[in-house]
Amino acid sequence: MEMIKRKVAVLGSTGSVGTQAIDALSVTDCEYVLLTGGRNIKLLADQARQTKVPLVAVPDEKTAVELRGLLAGESVKVLGGEGAVCEAIRECGADLFVHSIAGMAGIPAALEVSKTGARLAIANKEAIISLGDIIFDNVRKYGGELIPVDSEHSAIFQCLMTSGAVDAKGGSRPEIVKRILLTASGGPFFGKKREELQKVTPEMALAHPTWKMGPKITIDCATLMNKGFEIIEAARLFHVDIDKIEVLVHRQSIIHSMVEYIDTTVMAQLGTPDMRHCVRYALTYPERMTVKEPGLDFPALARLTFDAPDREAFPLLDTAVSAYKMGTTAPAALIAADEEAVSAFIGGKIGFTAISDTVAEAMVKYTPDTVYTAESVFEAEKEAREIAKQIISKY
Amino acid sequence: MEMIKRKVAVLGSTGSVGTQAIDALSVTDCEYVLLTGGRNIKLLADQARQTKVPLVAVPDEKTAVELRGLLAGESVKVLGGEGAVCEAIRECGADLFVHSIAGMAGIPAALEVSKTGARLAIANKEAIISLGDIIFDNVRKYGGELIPVDSEHSAIFQCLMTSGAVDAKGGSRPEIVKRILLTASGGPFFGKKREELQKVTPEMALAHPTWKMGPKITIDCATLMNKGFEIIEAARLFHVDIDKIEVLVHRQSIIHSMVEYIDTTVMAQLGTPDMRHCVRYALTYPERMTVKEPGLDFPALARLTFDAPDREAFPLLDTAVSAYKMGTTAPAALIAADEEAVSAFIGGKIGFTAISDTVAEAMVKYTPDTVYTAESVFEAEKEAREIAKQIISKY
Repeated sequence: MEMIKRKVAVLGSTGSVGTQAIDALSVTDCEYVLLTGGRNIKLLADQARQTKVPLVAVPDEKTAVELRGLLAGESVKVLGGEGAVCEAIRECGADLFVHSIAGMAGIPAALEVSKTGARLAIANKEAIISLGDIIFDNVRKYGGELIPVDSEHSAIFQCLMTSGAVDAKGGSRPEIVKRILLTASGGPFFGKKREELQKVTPEMALAHPTWKMGPKITIDCATLMNKGFEIIEAARLFHVDIDKIEVLVHRQSIIHSMVEYIDTTVMAQLGTPDMRHCVRYALTYPERMTVKEPGLDFPALARLTFDAPDREAFPLLDTAVSAYKMGTTAPAALIAADEEAVSAFIGGKIGFTAISDTVAEAMVKYTPDTVYTAESVFEAEKEAREIAKQIISKY
Repeated sequence: MEMIKRKVAVLGSTGSVGTQAIDALSVTDCEYVLLTGGRNIKLLADQARQTKVPLVAVPDEKTAVELRGLLAGESVKVLGGEGAVCEAIRECGADLFVHSIAGMAGIPAALEVSKTGARLAIANKEAIISLGDIIFDNVRKYGGELIPVDSEHSAIFQCLMTSGAVDAKGGSRPEIVKRILLTASGGPFFGKKREELQKVTPEMALAHPTWKMGPKITIDCATLMNKGFEIIEAARLFHVDIDKIEVLVHRQSIIHSMVEYIDTTVMAQLGTPDMRHCVRYALTYPERMTVKEPGLDFPALARLTFDAPDREAFPLLDTAVSAYKMGTTAPAALIAADEEAVSAFIGGKIGFTAISDTVAEAMVKYTPDTVYTAESVFEAEKEAREIAKQIISKY
């Protein structure tokens, strides 16, 4: 296989996905053209030296000044301030962007990349959930590509490849898909009922069994909000009716998701739970590269199990589907309401089950905008945060 | 989806795969142009009337005469005698041949179809094992297609489709395949040691847990010879090094096989154990068609298990790999020796473990031909039968 030497930008390179992306790419011969980070400038400076990247951007001017100090003597340009990340995206000339900025803060960067005509390997859920259709329109208009890096969506993407039911350029054939089976580890509280969940503390919730992740997404995994987000993400990414997306609890996290076709054939993608594989697939797609990590040992695994999710104990699965069906800006409002609720839980202001109560109540109170644009989405975010904060203040 | 109305020939239509093929095709709008059968002429006549096929062929002139009697008054031509099936294949104008003639008797038909430029949906293992390379040469030369109908090989085919590692025209990319994981139900005697297997009677062996099949293949499933054949079949069909093909015991027969790529990603194909799905996929490939049968219910399945095969209790797995490595005519000799051994077991002449002993000994005594042609393969068949009969006569 002739591998193209790609010019790569890693957005959010110091986060948990970003560091894994750099680790994954370290065994490839890609050339780094841009790294962006947030507050962890010590690590960002280390990464800049290690990757010999010529351009670094941070969204804060003061941080940029500090970073320039840390990188004194290196031939690297540091951009800082509001708009610096987007400016760097336009300027860097990458043909692959790994987008691993966490949260809604990553939305502007996703929009910017979608206009470059480059390949967008996206780990940021929020951009797809809030503005997936607009991002896809841009991908098609500017001739770019979009490949999910989330393990479940990378799996679904690969399962759909079997019958050409997806491509990176925004093509899809939802008519041959009967169901998407989105697997879920079930989180640390699988099997617990609502009464038991009321006793869950932030410390308990922050211990996630399979993937090493930041605190916000770890709580989202515990409430299954993350899986709810992934339902919406799958609907947006693969243009499949959201009612065809089923969540299946699979405790071992070996099957990363499945697709059932109209002929009842099920295709599954399996692997070790390692985000680096998804990053490499996004890099090499439609090709694959040899990796040195060991593969699955099925006799050692011995068994894979399946359970239906408990939608009463974990109501955010249904809240997510409802939010998607409300349309336009509602999914963005859902994310914002959840960010506030999780933040309040981690801060000790509300209990664990109050997260789902708060989000559900916020979505009842929220009315989606009649317009669906980047601007209306940002407005929705602000509005939903206010609604959520008001609900939280009453606890 | 625009479905092409296909002209279909079903070879061996009265066998277990053949009847399922006709059942599978009954929900499509294909046009039957040829049926062929053997001794079950009552069923063949019924099928001819039901499908309104204009041409039927049987390999025996006397049978043809009887069949003409049964079909008196119908507008159907009946060919009979040696060469009648091949003549009908050339004459019928099918663009899809479902080849479900059992055993080595199906080899001439497979060769004949491979020269028509039509699509060959092949359930006959023996032709692929004995002459796969020659059949593929013909498929490429005459612009035909070949799609496996065996559930495992259909599964592998679909898994390889994910990364374009196979196509129906004989294309393959074995360099991106790390392993093929060929699943096996383990047969009715899974878990038993050699000592226990010595007590197995034909009656015990003829009760197979999952698939309804003829007696010869049922015994081959019990000895795992069938899985050994499938290893060779997979090596031939997908041009993958035989040492990359691993047998994995999966008792539930839900995962029909898997492929591990060089990046450690595993793609699996799952479904209800129903041969009709494989027939329909071969018909509609690369498309899929809606079927009314229910799909898999994963929470109801609850678990899928994996075990390594016991290669001491079931030595024919290794005998098969060795036979393949001996090259040229050895795989054909393996089939012939096994047919004799199984026949002797069913006839009460030898015990269950003597099947594998006989086959192994026959392969030690057999020397492969230096030439690899249809003729040398037919010679090998005769020679191996003689060797096996001599071994059997000493029990």
